[in-house]
Amino acid sequence: MTAPPETDEFSLIARHFAPLASDAGALGLTDDAAVIDIPEGHQLVATKDAMVEGVHYLPDTAPGDIARKLLRVNLSDLAAMGAAPVGVLLACAFPKATRDEWIAEFAAGLGADLSEFNTGLLGGDTVSTGGLAVFSLTALGTVPKGEALTRGGAHPGDLVYVSGTLGDAAAGLGVLTKDLAGIEGADALAARHRHPIPRLALGQALRGIAGAAIDVSDGLMADAGHIADVSGVAIEIMAHKVPVSEPLAALIADDQALIALALAGGDDYELLFTAPAGRAEAVAAATKAAGIAVSEIGTVLAGKGITARDRDGAPVEIASPGWRHF
Amino acid sequence: MTAPPETDEFSLIARHFAPLASDAGALGLTDDAAVIDIPEGHQLVATKDAMVEGVHYLPDTAPGDIARKLLRVNLSDLAAMGAAPVGVLLACAFPKATRDEWIAEFAAGLGADLSEFNTGLLGGDTVSTGGLAVFSLTALGTVPKGEALTRGGAHPGDLVYVSGTLGDAAAGLGVLTKDLAGIEGADALAARHRHPIPRLALGQALRGIAGAAIDVSDGLMADAGHIADVSGVAIEIMAHKVPVSEPLAALIADDQALIALALAGGDDYELLFTAPAGRAEAVAAATKAAGIAVSEIGTVLAGKGITARDRDGAPVEIASPGWRHF
Repeated sequence: MTAPPETDEFSLIARHFAPLASDAGALGLTDDAAVIDIPEGHQLVATKDAMVEGVHYLPDTAPGDIARKLLRVNLSDLAAMGAAPVGVLLACAFPKATRDEWIAEFAAGLGADLSEFNTGLLGGDTVSTGGLAVFSLTALGTVPKGEALTRGGAHPGDLVYVSGTLGDAAAGLGVLTKDLAGIEGADALAARHRHPIPRLALGQALRGIAGAAIDVSDGLMADAGHIADVSGVAIEIMAHKVPVSEPLAALIADDQALIALALAGGDDYELLFTAPAGRAEAVAAATKAAGIAVSEIGTVLAGKGITARDRDGAPVEIASPGWRHF
Repeated sequence: MTAPPETDEFSLIARHFAPLASDAGALGLTDDAAVIDIPEGHQLVATKDAMVEGVHYLPDTAPGDIARKLLRVNLSDLAAMGAAPVGVLLACAFPKATRDEWIAEFAAGLGADLSEFNTGLLGGDTVSTGGLAVFSLTALGTVPKGEALTRGGAHPGDLVYVSGTLGDAAAGLGVLTKDLAGIEGADALAARHRHPIPRLALGQALRGIAGAAIDVSDGLMADAGHIADVSGVAIEIMAHKVPVSEPLAALIADDQALIALALAGGDDYELLFTAPAGRAEAVAAATKAAGIAVSEIGTVLAGKGITARDRDGAPVEIASPGWRHF
């Protein structure tokens, strides 16, 4: 009933994952659970996302990139709450034929990014499966009590902002699936798909300033819709103000319909947030402190639903690019 | 790149999992992450275990029982740390052909046990897989600062205790796989395998009394070995003192080799712990308060390794029963 032969699991954890153990409570991954200090006056923030072979990553994705993306998308959820990471727990279901080198590369990628984002492994489980690989990660963070950013804080009259540029990850997926192979900036776009950047510093800087916040994982229109639903408001996006990278701008100049990449493409993991119009200076200061550009792209209105309009005020139709799903 | 069609995932969560959302910070499962209060003077305890179709449960297991066991084994890890649960996060990778009724039964089983153990769902992720089902659960708990029970606190001279009876879950697996079908008490044994009881009250009552603690998931000898390894001690188990249920005692009376079920069978999720010999009265008071019997089964010695001895002091040989793995 115990999963893989025990000695294998213990040896695998000892070799590949114990070196990633957090100093903060992981007990060297040798105990039943991690014990973690939460600073006084803070709340715990917890999130969990899973990735499945063939659904969330292409079969030829490098093992280290799978681990890095899994970590980054979870840290992005912490960023969207304004939280600072304290550690992660990881569950891996490896197909029985998985080679030890594959697991070593997976762990190395995870370790590199745990260091990059200044956090560590607190625990987890490794099991074997007769099916496809499934990974899930739980990210834990902290936020000063009562200061978490949520999806529910948007009010009519607020302005809508987004960090960085949108559509690059969707275009990057097109590069990886060859639909957009050979375009200008292909490598940079593919990198945006592979290694999204959780906007942790920005999320924390926006505490007390942003009303509502979310990370753009499902696509701008869909994620703006989540804010609108939970806040009980309508949101209008000005399509021509949505920030795009140079390579994506070139694509759109050739084919206007590709604006859909920026409006509906997923996986950019930029922060979409609202703030009262009177807080524009505070927003500017926060984004400067976080070192990431932010664009004002819309307004919050009374009502419900999401609309994108062009510079003439006409609704923008969004065609779904065919390579979004694989 | 977003996993299952979004509307499906959102509707599935809304129908089956949102009703299980914890009042304590789950935000109705509508946000990026949960926000949880940790009482002042307490530490967070976090653990994560996974279950895979065909590895951790038999293919014909009822969906509700899979969810209940997943929850219970994770709560058992909290129990072994002396922690009180605050909530759980769940990741489900459902095979594409999974029927909605199957998911409803899974959620109903989870909901029943979340109520039973007075905790709730804080968040998670549901995805689809082209392979076999994989579930992982993260259990979060709290413990007064510095009072967590660990595997590292056993000292030479301590006594070794275990709660309840051992070997029932392994015998119950034998019942379920038909190897032991039709024996006396078959239903009760199968129930021990299906629905292990996390010893939460006992774990909490043992804070400040037990030196080291672990839940018996890999089997008594293996788990005693984990305590010995981490504590840097040897442990001697008196095999004749290991508590067994009436049906298991009857089996062992017929075939002495079946003592291996109690010594090496996994999945009982009883608490194995050590305490100084001078704290026997405190142990008795804690176990009375927790409403679960505890047996003294061995001693902690200087050195390393685990030995089981019979009433004459001779080492006991442990034969692995063939139905332990499937």
